[in-house]
Amino acid sequence: MTAGADMLRFTAEAYPICRSITGDGVRRTLAMLHERIPLEVHEVPTGTPVFDWTVPQEWNIREAWIKDPAGRKIVDFQDCNLHVLNYSVPVSARLPLAELKPHLFTLPDKPDLIPYRTSYYKEAWGFCLSHNQLQSLPDGEYEVHIDSTLADGSLSYGEFYLPGETEREVLFSTHVCHPSLCNDNLSGIAVMTWLAAELRERPRRRYSYRFLFIPGTIGSITWLARNEERAGRIAHGLVAANLGDSGNFHYKRSRRGDEEIDRAVLAVLRGTGEEFGAEYFVPFGYDERQYCSPGFNLPVGSLTRTPWGRYPQYHTSADNLDFISAEALEGSLRTYLAVVDVLEGNRRYLNLNPKCEPQLGRRGLYRTIGGDDAGRARELALLWVLNLSDGDNELLDIAERSGQSFAAIREAADALLAASLLREVEGPAR
Amino acid sequence: MTAGADMLRFTAEAYPICRSITGDGVRRTLAMLHERIPLEVHEVPTGTPVFDWTVPQEWNIREAWIKDPAGRKIVDFQDCNLHVLNYSVPVSARLPLAELKPHLFTLPDKPDLIPYRTSYYKEAWGFCLSHNQLQSLPDGEYEVHIDSTLADGSLSYGEFYLPGETEREVLFSTHVCHPSLCNDNLSGIAVMTWLAAELRERPRRRYSYRFLFIPGTIGSITWLARNEERAGRIAHGLVAANLGDSGNFHYKRSRRGDEEIDRAVLAVLRGTGEEFGAEYFVPFGYDERQYCSPGFNLPVGSLTRTPWGRYPQYHTSADNLDFISAEALEGSLRTYLAVVDVLEGNRRYLNLNPKCEPQLGRRGLYRTIGGDDAGRARELALLWVLNLSDGDNELLDIAERSGQSFAAIREAADALLAASLLREVEGPAR
Amino acid sequence: MTAGADMLRFTAEAYPICRSITGDGVRRTLAMLHERIPLEVHEVPTGTPVFDWTVPQEWNIREAWIKDPAGRKIVDFQDCNLHVLNYSVPVSARLPLAELKPHLFTLPDKPDLIPYRTSYYKEAWGFCLSHNQLQSLPDGEYEVHIDSTLADGSLSYGEFYLPGETEREVLFSTHVCHPSLCNDNLSGIAVMTWLAAELRERPRRRYSYRFLFIPGTIGSITWLARNEERAGRIAHGLVAANLGDSGNFHYKRSRRGDEEIDRAVLAVLRGTGEEFGAEYFVPFGYDERQYCSPGFNLPVGSLTRTPWGRYPQYHTSADNLDFISAEALEGSLRTYLAVVDVLEGNRRYLNLNPKCEPQLGRRGLYRTIGGDDAGRARELALLWVLNLSDGDNELLDIAERSGQSFAAIREAADALLAASLLREVEGPAR
Repeated sequence: MTAGADMLRFTAEAYPICRSITGDGVRRTLAMLHERIPLEVHEVPTGTPVFDWTVPQEWNIREAWIKDPAGRKIVDFQDCNLHVLNYSVPVSARLPLAELKPHLFTLPDKPDLIPYRTSYYKEAWGFCLSHNQLQSLPDGEYEVHIDSTLADGSLSYGEFYLPGETEREVLFSTHVCHPSLCNDNLSGIAVMTWLAAELRERPRRRYSYRFLFIPGTIGSITWLARNEERAGRIAHGLVAANLGDSGNFHYKRSRRGDEEIDRAVLAVLRGTGEEFGAEYFVPFGYDERQYCSPGFNLPVGSLTRTPWGRYPQYHTSADNLDFISAEALEGSLRTYLAVVDVLEGNRRYLNLNPKCEPQLGRRGLYRTIGGDDAGRARELALLWVLNLSDGDNELLDIAERSGQSFAAIREAADALLAASLLREVEGPAR
Repeated sequence: MTAGADMLRFTAEAYPICRSITGDGVRRTLAMLHERIPLEVHEVPTGTPVFDWTVPQEWNIREAWIKDPAGRKIVDFQDCNLHVLNYSVPVSARLPLAELKPHLFTLPDKPDLIPYRTSYYKEAWGFCLSHNQLQSLPDGEYEVHIDSTLADGSLSYGEFYLPGETEREVLFSTHVCHPSLCNDNLSGIAVMTWLAAELRERPRRRYSYRFLFIPGTIGSITWLARNEERAGRIAHGLVAANLGDSGNFHYKRSRRGDEEIDRAVLAVLRGTGEEFGAEYFVPFGYDERQYCSPGFNLPVGSLTRTPWGRYPQYHTSADNLDFISAEALEGSLRTYLAVVDVLEGNRRYLNLNPKCEPQLGRRGLYRTIGGDDAGRARELALLWVLNLSDGDNELLDIAERSGQSFAAIREAADALLAASLLREVEGPAR
Repeated sequence: MTAGADMLRFTAEAYPICRSITGDGVRRTLAMLHERIPLEVHEVPTGTPVFDWTVPQEWNIREAWIKDPAGRKIVDFQDCNLHVLNYSVPVSARLPLAELKPHLFTLPDKPDLIPYRTSYYKEAWGFCLSHNQLQSLPDGEYEVHIDSTLADGSLSYGEFYLPGETEREVLFSTHVCHPSLCNDNLSGIAVMTWLAAELRERPRRRYSYRFLFIPGTIGSITWLARNEERAGRIAHGLVAANLGDSGNFHYKRSRRGDEEIDRAVLAVLRGTGEEFGAEYFVPFGYDERQYCSPGFNLPVGSLTRTPWGRYPQYHTSADNLDFISAEALEGSLRTYLAVVDVLEGNRRYLNLNPKCEPQLGRRGLYRTIGGDDAGRARELALLWVLNLSDGDNELLDIAERSGQSFAAIREAADALLAASLLREVEGPAR
């Protein structure tokens, strides 16, 4: 079974769970991840101050429905957990349609779809349904019932740390707070879990790796508040989401804009030969908002397929299992792994024969009879690495300037190292 | 009556006056301005050395005409003051057409129009007329008469100074030396006068404002020579002209190229949503030539509608009252006021809650149920100001980076100040 | 006779000579150059270590042919010296076609043409022929004969040094190792020789000039190894080749990318008004590879017409006398001379009247009656030089910023020097 098919199966299992920013849905989801990676689950009590915020009460829900004047259940949380306004307070009431309507949310321009709505920080109750259904509702008295609890408890998040040769970390963060939405964000959860599992198998890691499975906004704020000192170790970071749809990759740069992580991701995306999107940082989106707030200003970007809000299925019942594929999940995992390979392999070398080119031919690194095209690309990579390995340039610089893929440049450097034509330079560029 | 209509009426009144770089035409025009703003009129005597130049003799003219062989006045200064070569020395003579022709100036490619020509620094006499009229002149003896005076006197210019909270000045400079030409430059004179009157009404001004109504070239050289020390106070400046035609706005940057005035004007023009032109500094044009000479190198650009020389009516009798409109003058005034608003409002703030986002919702600054689009743009402006208020960025930086209008960013900063989430930072960027 | 026709005649005379990286062909070619410029010919013995390389054995060849089974010479070095694999070891043998074929080189996609191939650093023998001819060869036993010598001797190169006012040098380097190929590189040899002859006639030279006529790769490595200290004097340099075809000029920047030589060449090419190509440094091509190796990193670019490998005649028998023209050679010489003129004339001046513009009119440098277009471009050049001569800008900076040609800016500076409005500033920019 491919990793993609495996991730798709995980997604199908986790799809029915009603997640939110707190509550048992998140805990059940984290438990599923624990079967694959030994992550730690943190519980932060309601009322804990986290910078300008406070950990909210915990929300849990058992059932929610609307009965029409004839007593038929016409909207039922059991059918689709998007039907309930996420974080609805409990309610049991009978009320005429006119009074019910302010509590009903639809998408008039997508009349078949159920929207996804939340009310985390203002107490409210409500239901989401298709606009077609709303239009068909007869006048009369309706019965509504939401059996939910909003009470002191805790906020749960998962954390998985893989130590490496140094304490400098690569952060991967993904949000776990969405109910039955596949691309946003079971896809992100799956790809990060499989990425973590794969990196865990590696015998050597230059960097340490930290994976956060957190509720959006309040989760990253909570982690940063509890790990303020540790955040300084984050050398590179990515926020992962929307990784299962068929769209092209899209990269949103860190606030700093031209950090190594930004350049690494863009080098990987360029290297695919496929179209991709790229944009500069904007202070809205996912948890990069918090990592890139001015008091932290961490080098954290966001690598997705189609970005949030730019596909019509976004935050609707159409973001379901049909919308994602094993192939897309697999491709996303490979792309994240390629970014890791750049970060791990981006070193700086010194050409030990800097005056004129070394004679590659007698080292078996060069064609012997001019005019033969075989091996040409490989030779060019060798020449680029030799020419630019002056103590200033890292391999990523060389890949960028040469237009060659990072993998080709890395391979050339390895050949030159084997031929004793390079040595690694530690420390900052001169 | 709108300001635009008011400015158009002023222009109609000032149109018939024969202005030049010196003489009573300028004085009469400055007197008209004095009815609206209490400007000071300076008189600088002929012969005064001003850097490499000398204030020239004063030119005044009473009448000028050509009579044809039949004794009919065929060209008459009373009909249109463009008919006389500006700064013509007096002449009274009879001469055959062949000898007259070297003194006649026409526009062969615009045969209906009378050109505007000058000879300030070389004694000459001449007439300007339509090429059609020149072509129709029969051979024979003509009589020419120019009753002008070129004699010691003075150069006149107007200066209006509005003190503000600091001595740092914003300079607005416009040329007053052109005779009956409306767009170039009664439009500039009108817009600067009304701008001055409006700024004068303001209870607070961060900057002091200086308005110069001066003859082109020699006027700015004279002012700079007499105010060499004071020129250092000029923090921002614009040369105003060609502000009454129906063309798009056009900005010519200061020699420095990326000063606050340059960025302020471009932010305003981008914010209009209309097309506009922009170019880098070139050392020809209007008085920015002098303000931006290397010995001063002041941050002075030029904001016009259609630039000089790029409309067919330029420097011809077609630059008349039909060529300009109240709407265009009004729009120009509003645009200059918007630039002033950027300069006055461009401050630097520090986000007092820099670690993660503050919870805007509990401060009434954020929507409560996700998915509602109302107020979205306003929220984005708040997030941009919070994210970039790190002590490095001014609001203009934030407007530029976010792509939002300066006004929207300024409004967001005011809301955040009211919520005690920002404080102003004085002094240079860190 | 024009220089172009003269260079074409030289090329025709030098075309039949079989050159290589060593041997008498190079010596004969250098002797032809000596008739025009008193260059010094250096002989570097076989076995001399030059950085990572060793001067190879010297190769000379007298005859080479293939006889078909009927005993007819079907391939003969006397007809075309491309027929022999350059640096072939001697051979005399009879062998069936199947055994011969691995020693035969053709161009299947250009079946009429004979390729140019070499095997400098691996002992081999072979023949080059048209693919059509290869296809027509009957089975049977062939006789091959190569009467060549690969033996200790020396590597020859030519060097011509023209002293100037300072020891800072301009390097012109061109490769002399190709047999009967006209554009690559008898054209480069011719243009450099005529350029040297023309510069030799000049009474004053700001820079010293060094011309190198060297075998590709091993020649520049040898020169750099023998002149390691002297290389530091090279202030600007160009590698010349492919200068006789009808294509547009093409410039490959130095590794540093924005050196004065790069800007000078590009200013000249822009000034021609014709299309041209430009690219950043890549570590393959001609001897700029060595001059720009990280241990030297000299400011050396390469100015050609159609670059190597981008014309179908490249390295084939079609790069013959029909492929080049006197006009192209002449134009190449003029372009190199224009680059020299920029390097010689690029000085920095200080405007001695920096506060406002000087009154050009009374110095006879300005039109007297406004509106006359004559001399306008010349005035603009004067204004640009005055405005930007603040001690920071060289004339090349001014040409770039103004968009005017370097020649126009140089002429304006001369006029202003004559009017005592400028003085030269020595030393680095402030």
